[in-house]
Amino acid sequence: MSPKITTELLKQLRQGMKSPKYVQEPVHAYIVPSGDAHQSEYIAPCDCRRAFISGFDGSAGTAIVTDQHAAMWTDGRYFLQAAHQMDNNWTLMKMGLKDTPTQEDWLVSVLPEGSKVGVDPFIIPADQWKRMSKALRSAGHDLVPVKENLIDTIWTDCPQRPCRPLITLDLSYTGVSWKDKIAALRSKMAERKVLWFVVTALDEVAWLFNLRGSDVEYNPVFFAYAVIGMNTIRLFIDGDRIMDPAVREHLQLDSTLEPEFKIQVMPYGSILSELQAVGAGLSPKEKVWLSDKASYALTEAIPKDYRYLTPYTPICIAKAVKNASETEGMRRAHVKDAVALCELFNWLEKEVPKGTVTEIIAADKAEEFRSQQKDFVELSFATISSTGPNGAIIHYKPVPETNRTLSVNEIYLLDSGAQYKDGTTDVTRTMHFGTPSAYEKECFTYVLKGHIAVSAAIFPNGTKGHLLDSFARSALWDCGLDYLHGTGHGVGSFLNVHEGPCGISYKTFADEPLEAGMIVSDEPGYYEDGSFGIRIENVVLVIPAETKYNFKNRGSLTFEPLTLVPIQTKMIDVNLLTQKERNWVDDYHQKCREVIGAELERQGRHEALQWLIRETEPLLRAQ
Amino acid sequence: MSPKITTELLKQLRQGMKSPKYVQEPVHAYIVPSGDAHQSEYIAPCDCRRAFISGFDGSAGTAIVTDQHAAMWTDGRYFLQAAHQMDNNWTLMKMGLKDTPTQEDWLVSVLPEGSKVGVDPFIIPADQWKRMSKALRSAGHDLVPVKENLIDTIWTDCPQRPCRPLITLDLSYTGVSWKDKIAALRSKMAERKVLWFVVTALDEVAWLFNLRGSDVEYNPVFFAYAVIGMNTIRLFIDGDRIMDPAVREHLQLDSTLEPEFKIQVMPYGSILSELQAVGAGLSPKEKVWLSDKASYALTEAIPKDYRYLTPYTPICIAKAVKNASETEGMRRAHVKDAVALCELFNWLEKEVPKGTVTEIIAADKAEEFRSQQKDFVELSFATISSTGPNGAIIHYKPVPETNRTLSVNEIYLLDSGAQYKDGTTDVTRTMHFGTPSAYEKECFTYVLKGHIAVSAAIFPNGTKGHLLDSFARSALWDCGLDYLHGTGHGVGSFLNVHEGPCGISYKTFADEPLEAGMIVSDEPGYYEDGSFGIRIENVVLVIPAETKYNFKNRGSLTFEPLTLVPIQTKMIDVNLLTQKERNWVDDYHQKCREVIGAELERQGRHEALQWLIRETEPLLRAQ
Repeated sequence: MSPKITTELLKQLRQGMKSPKYVQEPVHAYIVPSGDAHQSEYIAPCDCRRAFISGFDGSAGTAIVTDQHAAMWTDGRYFLQAAHQMDNNWTLMKMGLKDTPTQEDWLVSVLPEGSKVGVDPFIIPADQWKRMSKALRSAGHDLVPVKENLIDTIWTDCPQRPCRPLITLDLSYTGVSWKDKIAALRSKMAERKVLWFVVTALDEVAWLFNLRGSDVEYNPVFFAYAVIGMNTIRLFIDGDRIMDPAVREHLQLDSTLEPEFKIQVMPYGSILSELQAVGAGLSPKEKVWLSDKASYALTEAIPKDYRYLTPYTPICIAKAVKNASETEGMRRAHVKDAVALCELFNWLEKEVPKGTVTEIIAADKAEEFRSQQKDFVELSFATISSTGPNGAIIHYKPVPETNRTLSVNEIYLLDSGAQYKDGTTDVTRTMHFGTPSAYEKECFTYVLKGHIAVSAAIFPNGTKGHLLDSFARSALWDCGLDYLHGTGHGVGSFLNVHEGPCGISYKTFADEPLEAGMIVSDEPGYYEDGSFGIRIENVVLVIPAETKYNFKNRGSLTFEPLTLVPIQTKMIDVNLLTQKERNWVDDYHQKCREVIGAELERQGRHEALQWLIRETEPLLRAQ
Repeated sequence: MSPKITTELLKQLRQGMKSPKYVQEPVHAYIVPSGDAHQSEYIAPCDCRRAFISGFDGSAGTAIVTDQHAAMWTDGRYFLQAAHQMDNNWTLMKMGLKDTPTQEDWLVSVLPEGSKVGVDPFIIPADQWKRMSKALRSAGHDLVPVKENLIDTIWTDCPQRPCRPLITLDLSYTGVSWKDKIAALRSKMAERKVLWFVVTALDEVAWLFNLRGSDVEYNPVFFAYAVIGMNTIRLFIDGDRIMDPAVREHLQLDSTLEPEFKIQVMPYGSILSELQAVGAGLSPKEKVWLSDKASYALTEAIPKDYRYLTPYTPICIAKAVKNASETEGMRRAHVKDAVALCELFNWLEKEVPKGTVTEIIAADKAEEFRSQQKDFVELSFATISSTGPNGAIIHYKPVPETNRTLSVNEIYLLDSGAQYKDGTTDVTRTMHFGTPSAYEKECFTYVLKGHIAVSAAIFPNGTKGHLLDSFARSALWDCGLDYLHGTGHGVGSFLNVHEGPCGISYKTFADEPLEAGMIVSDEPGYYEDGSFGIRIENVVLVIPAETKYNFKNRGSLTFEPLTLVPIQTKMIDVNLLTQKERNWVDDYHQKCREVIGAELERQGRHEALQWLIRETEPLLRAQ
């Protein structure tokens, strides 16, 4: 992977920062955040402005360019990748390390007095704007909105914004109709005494209307906003996709409906002016509810005293608690996904020793097996297929320049998942096709102990996920090992593979308490730069637990793994496991054998079934 | 304990809330916070306004009185105590429970539109003011400062503000001179480009000048403020205590000194006007550093653009990391404290069966034994001496009305500590003088497992204490048990027994990372309302750990118990402990025997030594 040469682009950007065509007064620094106008984590090619200007295309990162400097903030998952992809015009700011300055502190340290810092107001979330604006102002600088995106002005071959057909989801998938979802939302609005709710996150629009799209790779969403009033529904969406008869019927666009469920369809680009009109028409005490992560531009459309901002919207919270239809769908999706992986691993075991399987071939094969399953739509993220040292690049994606051949001498890490119409999967397995070293087994076993500690944890109702993060690290910590990423994230139901408001991470404190029905990942890891990466990831469902004393009727919760793919016992140093941990592994493998075995049998995949049976032998027999 | 009858007081307060003598416009609600003008946790009698108006005298709680309602917010430590002490004019708001409204939400729900909410601006911290003011404003209400404290206006027999003599501490105790501390502070100020630093917390003033006082019971502090400039030092303190020759010499008030270390002594009451003068004299870009928990009144004295507010001051952070002299002092204090407790427990074992020892007698006896030790100053908090159901009142203090007699049939919980000139102690032991039930032993053992899990935890440098909180709960959670308080707090060095910026609690996220030299408590518990309370508390020092892989040179930390008092093995169900946990208990007891045994021997306390030897038998032999 050779870095992108950015000298000329930075020169052009710096000219734009001073050009009266775009800015009233020159800006001394320009911020290029990661997201799009919806604060999406995964974005369409036309929104990859930070990758365009810097070369670094990981999923998280913020670039700031001044007259003299160009700096990139990203987190531990991407330190290696960013260092590889950026040329030496760029300084890498490793977030989470003690000596790394915040963006604000850095700006204050490098800017001359009284500087202006520019940013596209549609791209920066309102809460970030507020924090940064305050910090800059207190140091004598100004954060200013630059209407025209300065990257777009120099991005001559910027791709078009996608506008692909919609998928309608019926009740068997969603469990709740879009009308019932809107009614529930309105009752939350009434509770908080707000008159309007602005839906800005793409997955929230999709969930609310029981629609899916494919405007953003891996995320089944479509570019749209919605504004929900107590008696009106406005959907801002472009293209003729709304003319599709199935969509029209699903949304009942041509039916006689109760007026409060009549949807007005408006152009995507009219959201700002429409919202400004809403803002201008408010009487005192009438409030508009927005996420505090909505863009600064949309937030500003509502006068300050009329805004009701919350970190998590009621849609985000309702979406996180899966209903019975969604949970059953997620179970089905995970069974199919496990079938595909059993096929893959069986195939890899035969092919790897021949020396012909590269990371890309393995990733393609995984996709091929998944695509054979019913209701497969697409992958849920770029497959991380990595062997040896590439495994230490936490969000690695194999490209021809880095593509290694799998061998019997290296650890192989596969983090992959898919979108099925009934659910979203995300699973990581780490394996060795030869004989792992004692050190590799030791590290793997600590990671496994962490995985089990979270998966088997019992905790009272109302516990926030971040309180479980240390359980995943304890065994690693005891030996002086750690990993620089969170332990788990919320997972959507045929939606984004990363979603709020819950998760398991030392980094988030504002997460909502875990509730039965929420679905998160459990994925501790260990990474040895230049050598190997280990991660063991299951998607797990929060379920009620049985405990001896049940927290005085407060209720107990635990996790049930939805992912049912064998964990390679060859990598386990059984002596490092407690009896409880051994039982957990054996019980898990028995469930894999029963549930996935039945499906492999049903699909007539006999060779993969034999592989599954071999891989799910009880631990002491397997060793 | 009968509740305080508050009907008449509330009537008078409500009159004050409408009286033009005190308020320009009537206030519809009046907030009575817990603290004093220094946001102290423990306060002088003259500052116990919340206890005066409500009867509830726990260390944490906020009262809000409206025309119709009187409500008290407090946390899980005080639910039972508050319910006992308040009459039915008051509604108890149990913080930390899901359905309890925040103060802001409650105010919004009960107040008529456009209400005014009053508070003493000297008593409310600026960060609380800001949060509450914003929430109220967004609901159409106003938070307004009421200069005259409305409680003081009806508190006819309010005691005088104390003004007791000062204690000077020399280098053998403090390790660093006050001049070096001020020089270090000034270099932090220069780093952040601030010209002035306002010291508002009493323990920070005491620490900075290496002085102690006794204005507040249990906390060796004195009423004072300080304002530190780059070349000036102003100490705001009342009374003739500054005329004491020892104090004058310590502060070098009569010496020829470098001008930047010359201390100007000013009246305590002049802080506001002096700070306003500082504020008025600032040029653009000149900043004044305050804690964001400084009072609203003092914060407002500095114009907004000139304030530099941080959650933790550099003094708070420097104070938390104990130097070698302080650590050695803390060790000595804990050895003396353990000697006193061995004497006490030996005495209790003989006396309790006679049926003559009450909670108060036991507490007094503990104080008597402590006061025999060298450099004893006072207790570090009100002794929690509680037996049977009283043990479930987490911050119980025995009073004649509640005073129970210790017996061989109930669990006894003693949480106590002292101030010695060389250090502060805080230790909880739970014991049974007869035969504990299987259930009591089971609960005790889970608490012990949690205590050990924290004490023996190994974690990387830079870890925040709150990430360790769940370790203390895991064994309890597995059986559906929990406790409604944090696991640990910072402990001062001959200073406040509770101090920031570190701790171990699920409730705090803004804690600073743990560093070698910090001292915290480790005190999980379990409480069965109406039956018993269990808590096992040691004070522990953060020390570097040896690990196999040492976090790639990031460094490892763990804890070393400073408290060396036997944990009653009779209460332990050894079958519930792992081998590692048994070893921990045995190693801990061996250290108690060696270190405290030697000191008991030296002090000629032979009977207590015999008791110590019995109580520190290895587990399997002891059972």
